[in-house]
Amino acid sequence: MILTVTLNTALDVTYGVPALAPHSSHRVDTVTERPGGKGLNVARVLAALGHDVTVTGFTGGATGTVVRELLAREAPSVTDALVPVAGSTRRTIAVVDAATGDTTQLNEPGPVITPAEWAGFLDAYGELLGTAEAVALCGSLPPGVPVGAYAVLIRQARTAGVPVLLDTSGEPLRRGIAARPDLVKPNADELAQLTGSREPLGAARDARRRGARTVVASLGAKGLLAAAADGIWQAAPPAAVRGNPTGAGDSAVAGLLSGLVEGLPWPERLARAVALSAATVLAPAAGEFDRAAYDDLLSRVAVTELATAA
Amino acid sequence: MILTVTLNTALDVTYGVPALAPHSSHRVDTVTERPGGKGLNVARVLAALGHDVTVTGFTGGATGTVVRELLAREAPSVTDALVPVAGSTRRTIAVVDAATGDTTQLNEPGPVITPAEWAGFLDAYGELLGTAEAVALCGSLPPGVPVGAYAVLIRQARTAGVPVLLDTSGEPLRRGIAARPDLVKPNADELAQLTGSREPLGAARDARRRGARTVVASLGAKGLLAAAADGIWQAAPPAAVRGNPTGAGDSAVAGLLSGLVEGLPWPERLARAVALSAATVLAPAAGEFDRAAYDDLLSRVAVTELATAA
Repeated sequence: MILTVTLNTALDVTYGVPALAPHSSHRVDTVTERPGGKGLNVARVLAALGHDVTVTGFTGGATGTVVRELLAREAPSVTDALVPVAGSTRRTIAVVDAATGDTTQLNEPGPVITPAEWAGFLDAYGELLGTAEAVALCGSLPPGVPVGAYAVLIRQARTAGVPVLLDTSGEPLRRGIAARPDLVKPNADELAQLTGSREPLGAARDARRRGARTVVASLGAKGLLAAAADGIWQAAPPAAVRGNPTGAGDSAVAGLLSGLVEGLPWPERLARAVALSAATVLAPAAGEFDRAAYDDLLSRVAVTELATAA
Repeated sequence: MILTVTLNTALDVTYGVPALAPHSSHRVDTVTERPGGKGLNVARVLAALGHDVTVTGFTGGATGTVVRELLAREAPSVTDALVPVAGSTRRTIAVVDAATGDTTQLNEPGPVITPAEWAGFLDAYGELLGTAEAVALCGSLPPGVPVGAYAVLIRQARTAGVPVLLDTSGEPLRRGIAARPDLVKPNADELAQLTGSREPLGAARDARRRGARTVVASLGAKGLLAAAADGIWQAAPPAAVRGNPTGAGDSAVAGLLSGLVEGLPWPERLARAVALSAATVLAPAAGEFDRAAYDDLLSRVAVTELATAA
């Protein structure tokens, strides 16, 4: 199976309102809820691609119970191996203006994880690695988890011989990358924050020098830039796509992981990731991907080799 | 016991953010949750005043479970007689700007109540009336409940000989008032919407002609205006109070109900209601009242008799 880790799982709540006006009262017209946190989104896409996927991370409180109930509806393709904690899983509220589609996001910080809960997670994670073909470490850290948490999880995966992908930002990314993950997938902002450079190719090479075996940078409408040991590629959709970019990065991660466990060459992995990402932007519901668009786009992604060694 | 009815109970969630900026992403700094809906707020204040109080209305889903768990912490002073439904209790989100204290409110609509659930509620309500000294009908109606619901509940209370207070707005108020409640407590806007008049005394008299035995209008900083069969009174706090007005109207309702079951004359009821209301504005937490401020204000509320018959 493929394992995704979401230490700060969430219940993603979307509110439809006519228009958000600060300091006034709004009647919410529509309410939707789904399990959230990057690793859960990645898992959903992997399952849709036919992979056997297990999710772990923390869950707690009434909101955690709702997340698990919603996840159970996605079984058997997604296996719930979330670890219970005393605190309450966070909510994220996306307030969408009906007229314009503009979104205002409110993200709760998440539960405070105790040292004992973190130690318990490391044990559970170690066991799950025993049957994992690959692992993705995704998203922000909840309060209480050490900032070097991803470095610890990466070393554990490397010791177990499981390829590990890291998708986070800020200091957790900086610390994690030093532990030599197989793949990191920063977006342009995250890469610039890490390296200080806004020039993607130079920054991706810098990130490799910091410890990442491969860097796949997501460049929005320009697609993906991959810097691997054996080459550098750019992969772009056939045309710019318009829609809701929520979850596009998570779909790219799912494409990369899926290609990794299938042993696809880099150009094919990148084409899959770009097509999934674009098909997610095109889907009406945030974070879903449009299957027909994906099938159509897959053969039309342009992959260019920029160099034969990074 | 005193019975309060909250057909559209809520989980009131408060988010502290530095400043709300539409169409951007916010990290929420503080999250607080408490049982909400006007009747639950009224019950909390009645319990603090030493009354035995029972709450009923609808509750359902994961959010309903949280509301009941939080209510249980207030037991034994508040008895939970909420009726379970299949839909999910609504959340209200108050986003408070840390710098200015300005609040942006997002209110979910509430669960859709089926005809069978409404019929079941009427049975439960009828039983509760058997031991009630007074009943307060509070707040908005969830989807599915007939717009004339309060008229039905008022007639049932009158048949059972239980004094009934109505605190709602719009069409449910208009329909309810025609069923001859003992007391309605509109604010200035609700009274103007009902009667078409912004002149409080004339509008209160109009509301009496529409069926309310007594009208107590809440006029913000100006206090309360009461139009009863045996007189008209104005009750005002000794000075304008500054603070968070959330829940001030619910505290006034609690003061009126409390004075009713204790058989206090109108001037004393109104003084209590005004002091509680002002002490709620002064309390740091939304919807709580400041006990010391209440004790201090109680003797200092000015009650003026404007006429000896309405």
